[in-house]
Amino acid sequence: MKRIGVITSGGDAPGMNAAIRAVVRTARMRGIDVIGFYHGYSGIIDNEIVELTYKDVGGIMERGGTILRSSRCEEFKTTHGRELAMKNLRENGIDALVVIGGEGSLTGAMLLEEEFNLPVVGIPATIDNDINATDMCIGVDTCLNTVVEATQKLKDTASSHERAFIVEVMGRKSGYIALMSGIAIGAEAVVIPEVPVDYGALADRILEARKRGKINCIIMVAEGAASAYTVARHLEHRIGYETRITILGHIQRGGSPTAFDRILASRMGYEAVSALLSGKHNIMIGLQRGKMAHVPLEEALSKKKPLDMSYYEMSLLLS
Amino acid sequence: MKRIGVITSGGDAPGMNAAIRAVVRTARMRGIDVIGFYHGYSGIIDNEIVELTYKDVGGIMERGGTILRSSRCEEFKTTHGRELAMKNLRENGIDALVVIGGEGSLTGAMLLEEEFNLPVVGIPATIDNDINATDMCIGVDTCLNTVVEATQKLKDTASSHERAFIVEVMGRKSGYIALMSGIAIGAEAVVIPEVPVDYGALADRILEARKRGKINCIIMVAEGAASAYTVARHLEHRIGYETRITILGHIQRGGSPTAFDRILASRMGYEAVSALLSGKHNIMIGLQRGKMAHVPLEEALSKKKPLDMSYYEMSLLLS
Amino acid sequence: MKRIGVITSGGDAPGMNAAIRAVVRTARMRGIDVIGFYHGYSGIIDNEIVELTYKDVGGIMERGGTILRSSRCEEFKTTHGRELAMKNLRENGIDALVVIGGEGSLTGAMLLEEEFNLPVVGIPATIDNDINATDMCIGVDTCLNTVVEATQKLKDTASSHERAFIVEVMGRKSGYIALMSGIAIGAEAVVIPEVPVDYGALADRILEARKRGKINCIIMVAEGAASAYTVARHLEHRIGYETRITILGHIQRGGSPTAFDRILASRMGYEAVSALLSGKHNIMIGLQRGKMAHVPLEEALSKKKPLDMSYYEMSLLLS
Amino acid sequence: MKRIGVITSGGDAPGMNAAIRAVVRTARMRGIDVIGFYHGYSGIIDNEIVELTYKDVGGIMERGGTILRSSRCEEFKTTHGRELAMKNLRENGIDALVVIGGEGSLTGAMLLEEEFNLPVVGIPATIDNDINATDMCIGVDTCLNTVVEATQKLKDTASSHERAFIVEVMGRKSGYIALMSGIAIGAEAVVIPEVPVDYGALADRILEARKRGKINCIIMVAEGAASAYTVARHLEHRIGYETRITILGHIQRGGSPTAFDRILASRMGYEAVSALLSGKHNIMIGLQRGKMAHVPLEEALSKKKPLDMSYYEMSLLLS
Repeated sequence: MKRIGVITSGGDAPGMNAAIRAVVRTARMRGIDVIGFYHGYSGIIDNEIVELTYKDVGGIMERGGTILRSSRCEEFKTTHGRELAMKNLRENGIDALVVIGGEGSLTGAMLLEEEFNLPVVGIPATIDNDINATDMCIGVDTCLNTVVEATQKLKDTASSHERAFIVEVMGRKSGYIALMSGIAIGAEAVVIPEVPVDYGALADRILEARKRGKINCIIMVAEGAASAYTVARHLEHRIGYETRITILGHIQRGGSPTAFDRILASRMGYEAVSALLSGKHNIMIGLQRGKMAHVPLEEALSKKKPLDMSYYEMSLLLS
Repeated sequence: MKRIGVITSGGDAPGMNAAIRAVVRTARMRGIDVIGFYHGYSGIIDNEIVELTYKDVGGIMERGGTILRSSRCEEFKTTHGRELAMKNLRENGIDALVVIGGEGSLTGAMLLEEEFNLPVVGIPATIDNDINATDMCIGVDTCLNTVVEATQKLKDTASSHERAFIVEVMGRKSGYIALMSGIAIGAEAVVIPEVPVDYGALADRILEARKRGKINCIIMVAEGAASAYTVARHLEHRIGYETRITILGHIQRGGSPTAFDRILASRMGYEAVSALLSGKHNIMIGLQRGKMAHVPLEEALSKKKPLDMSYYEMSLLLS
Repeated sequence: MKRIGVITSGGDAPGMNAAIRAVVRTARMRGIDVIGFYHGYSGIIDNEIVELTYKDVGGIMERGGTILRSSRCEEFKTTHGRELAMKNLRENGIDALVVIGGEGSLTGAMLLEEEFNLPVVGIPATIDNDINATDMCIGVDTCLNTVVEATQKLKDTASSHERAFIVEVMGRKSGYIALMSGIAIGAEAVVIPEVPVDYGALADRILEARKRGKINCIIMVAEGAASAYTVARHLEHRIGYETRITILGHIQRGGSPTAFDRILASRMGYEAVSALLSGKHNIMIGLQRGKMAHVPLEEALSKKKPLDMSYYEMSLLLS
Repeated sequence: MKRIGVITSGGDAPGMNAAIRAVVRTARMRGIDVIGFYHGYSGIIDNEIVELTYKDVGGIMERGGTILRSSRCEEFKTTHGRELAMKNLRENGIDALVVIGGEGSLTGAMLLEEEFNLPVVGIPATIDNDINATDMCIGVDTCLNTVVEATQKLKDTASSHERAFIVEVMGRKSGYIALMSGIAIGAEAVVIPEVPVDYGALADRILEARKRGKINCIIMVAEGAASAYTVARHLEHRIGYETRITILGHIQRGGSPTAFDRILASRMGYEAVSALLSGKHNIMIGLQRGKMAHVPLEEALSKKKPLDMSYYEMSLLLS
C-alpha cells in the first residue's frame, strides 16, 4: 500500500478534523502518502484533490467542521457516478479509501469495495449516533454539550419568567440527542420518535409539577418526532406556563470538539490506517465496550442502532 | 432612609443578579433594609415580598436571569394599578425604590415618583442597548458574546458545506446586536432596521466575494428589520451558496454574565444606593465615558438611543 | 428500607451534585427518605445532617463541587471514629448509605458494611479515573475538557512567541489526565508515572520537530511523574524553544459538569438506589461496556486501574 | 501612501489578529499594500516579511495570539538596531508603520518616527491595561473573562471544601486585572501594588466573614504586589480556612477574543489606517469615552495610567 485517499462526507460533525489528522499522520509515519478529496464523493468525481502531509494537519484538531469540506452527492448514488469516481481514484493511484461520515457515506464506501474491489474503511461520524455496532459516533459528544450549554441559558430566562421552553433538536429518525440532552439538562419531558406522545398525560404531568412549585419547564423535542410548534400548540394553556419555542438548528453541528470527540476521532483514524496495513478492509471502525472494533460494513449498515429505552424511563423518574 | 425596595422588570438580562447583589450589599453596609418584590411591578401589586440580607445575595452574581424573577405588567400601566402598588409600597415601609430593567420598566418608575413622590432610581438593564444617555445597558455584553459564540459554531459548518447562514438575532427596533455581533464575527452583511436593505445589491456583493473564493457567508439580521426567512427568500439562488436559517432566540437572554456585565451591574447597583443616600432620585444611573452618571429619568426616556452609523460603514469595509 | 443516607467524600469532582440529585429523586419516587450528611464521614461523626427532598436537589445538576460539601477525615480511619459514625447512622435511622467519592471513600464504605453490617453502595467519583472495574469515574470527562480548554489558550500564546509550555496536571499515581489531554491537545510529549522519562531522547525529538518547522510545543506532565520545574530544567536550552511553565491546579476540579458527567452521574445515582432496593449492597456501581455494573467493593478496591498503554503509543505517533 | 508595514510586538494579547485584519482590509480597500513583519521589531531587523492580502486575514479574527507572532527585541533598543530596522523598512518601500503592542512597543514606534521621520501609528494591545490616554487596551476584556471563568471553577471546589483560594494573576505594576476580576468574581480581598497590604487587618476581616457563615474565600493577588505564596504564608492559620494557591499564568494571554476585543481591535485597526491616510501620525489610537481618539505618542507614553481607586473601595464594600 503506497497511497490512500480520505474524504469527509454527508453532514459535518465536530471531530472530523481530528480523524483526518490521525489518518494522515498514522499513514505518513508508516511511509504512505495521503490524498484528500474535497467535498466527499462529489470531489472524487470532480477530481478535487489535495496532498496531505504531516504538517498540513497541524492545528486542525481543535477546529469544528472539516478542512476537506463535505457534501451530499446524488450522482454517486448512480452506477455511472461511482464509475467516474473509481476512474479518478485509479488515476490518482489510490490503493485504499478512508471514508469519514454517516450511514449514507459508509454505504457509498461499501459499494466502492463491492463493485470495484477498492479496499475501504469507514469511520462513523454523525451527530445522530444512529449507526449500528459502534457505541458512539464522532461528533455526538460535542453536539450534546452544545445542546446542554444552549439549553442551560434558556433555563436562566425560563426561571426568571416562569416559562416553559420547547426546544427542538436534531434527530430525524432518532431521539438520541433529545433524550440524552434531556437527561443532562433535567428536562421535564422528552418527545422522541421512538415513543408515541400522549399530550394530555404530558400536560397533566407538567401542570402537577408546576403546582408543586416548579418555576421552569424544559421540553426537548427531536425534530423527527414533532415540530416544536406542534408541541407548543398541544400544551399551551394547559400547563400553567407561558410557552416559548427555540429551534437550536445548525449550531448543533459546530464548535470546537470536546476532549472525548478528539480522542475518539484520533483513535478511529489511527485504527483505520492500522487496519488497512494489516490487510483489513470493507469494515467500519467501531467503539465497542471502550475498545476499537473492526465491524464488517455490511453489519454496520444492516440496521439503525436502536435507542436504549432504559434511559427514557430514567429521564421520566429524575425530572 | 430606612428601607428600600428593589425589583427587576421586563425582559430579563444577564447581570441583573449582580445589580441586585450590589444594591442589597451597599444598602445593608449602610444600615438600610432591602425588600425585594418578585415579578417586577406585578409583584408589588400582589405584595410578593422577600427581605434580602447580605447573605441572600451570595453566589448569585454568576447566574443568568434574576432571582427576583421578572414580568411585564399590564395592570401597572393603569392609574389604578399604580395606586395598588403604591399602597403596598407604603404598607411595607418602602422609602425608595430601585428599578432594574428596560425602557418600559423605567417609565413605570418615573410615574411612581411623579404621581406619588416616591423616590426612585433606575438601572438600565436590557439586551437591546437602546436606552438614551447610557453607553451600555446591563446584559448587552453577555448577549453579544453569546451571539458571537453561537455564530462561530455556524461558521464551522458553513465553511464545511460552503453555505450561507442567515442568522436572526434580537432587536425589534434597534440593529445594535446584529451590527455589533456582525462586526465581531466578520459577517458578510448586516440587515438592520436603521438601514433600508437593497437585496439586489446585497446579492451581487455576496456573489462577487463568493467568486473571489470565499467559502462561507454569514448574514446577521435584526428581527425588527426582516425575518430570516424573508432575507433567505430574497437571496437564495442569487449568491452562489445554499442558504440555511438560524433564529438564535432566547438563548441570547441567558448565560452567566461576562466580566464586563458583572462589573457594570455592580457599579450601577452601588451607585443607585449611593445616589439615594445623597438625596438624588428620579434618575437613572448611566455609564457615560466610563463614569457613572446621574441622568434624570425624563431625559433617559425622552428618546431611543440612536445607532452609531460609523459602525455600519466599518462593517461593510471589513467584511 | 425506609431511609437512606448519602455523602460526598474526598476530593470533589464535577458531577457529584448530579449523583446526589439522582439518589434523592430515585429514592423519593419510591417512598424512601434521604438524609444527607455534610463533609463526608466527618459529618457523620459530627452528625451534620440535612433532609433532602425532591425539590432540594432542583437546579444543582449544573453546578460544580458538591452541595453536601466534602472532606478527608482522619478520625474515620480509626475504629473509634467508625463506631461514632455508626452510632449516628443508627440514631438517624439510616438503613443504608450511598457513598460518592474516590478510593479512600469507598474503602470507608466497605469497612462500615464489614464491621457493622450497614448496607452500602459506592459511586466512583474522582478526576483521577484510577478506580478498578469502572471504565469512567464521575468528573473525569469534565476535568479533561477543562485541561484541554486551558491548554488550548496556552497554545495560542505558545505559537505567537514560539515557546514550549510545560503543563502540570493532576495525577499523583496515574498519568490518565496527562495522557488523554495530551492526545486531545496534540501535545508533543507526555510525562507520566507509568513510563520512565528519557530527557535526552525527549529533547532530541522536540528539537527535531522544531527544525522541521513546528512553532509551538506543549508537554503535559502528570504531577506524580515529575514537577513541571524539573521537566523544564531538563529541557531548556536543548529544544530550540524558550520554555514556560503552567500548573493548572485546582481549576481541574471545578466547573459545570459536561453532558457526559451529568448523564453518568445520573445513571449511577439511579442505579445505586435501584440496587439497594433489589437487595444488593457492599458494591460499587461501575460503568462497564456502556452498561451499569454491580461490582463487589472488594473487587473494585483490590487494585488500581492500570493505564491502557496503547494510548501512549498512539500519542507518540500522532504528535 | 502606497505601502504600509504592520507588526505585533511584546507580550501577545487576544484581539491582535482582529487588529491585523482591520489594518490589512482597510488599507487594501483603499489601494494600499500591506507588508507584515514577523516577530515584531526583531523581524524588521531580520527582514522576515510577508505580504498580507484581503484573503490572508480571513478566519483569523477568532483566534488568540497573533499570526505575525511577536517577541521582545533587545537589539531594537539600540540606535544600531533601529538603523538596521529602518534600512529594511526603506528597502521594502514601507511608507508608514502600524505597531500593535504595549508600552515598550509603542516607545519603539515613537523612536522610529523621531529619529527617521517614518510615519507611525500605535495600537495599544496589552492585557495590563496600563497605557495612558486610552480607556481600554486590546486583550484586557478577554483576559478578565478568562480570569473570571477560571476563578469561578475554583469557587466550586472552594465551597465544597470550605477553603480559601489565593489566586495570582498578571500585573507587574498594575493591579487592574486583580481588582476588576476580583469585583467580577466577588473576591473577599484584592492584593494590588497600588495599596499597601495590612495582613493582620485582612486576616481579621476574612475570619469575621467566615464566622458569619461564609464557606469560601477568594483572594485575588496581582503578581507585582506579592506572590501568592507570600500571601498564603501571612494568612494561613488566621482565617478559619485551609488555603490553596493557584497561579493562573499564561492562560490569561490566550483564548479566542471576546466580542468586545474583536470590535475594539477592528475599530482601532480601521482608525489607524484612516488616520495615516488623512496625514495623521506619531499618534496612538485610543478609546476615549466610547470614541476613537488620536493621542500623540508622547502623551500616551508620558506616564502609566493610574488605577481608578473608586473600584477598590467598591470591591471592599461588596465582597
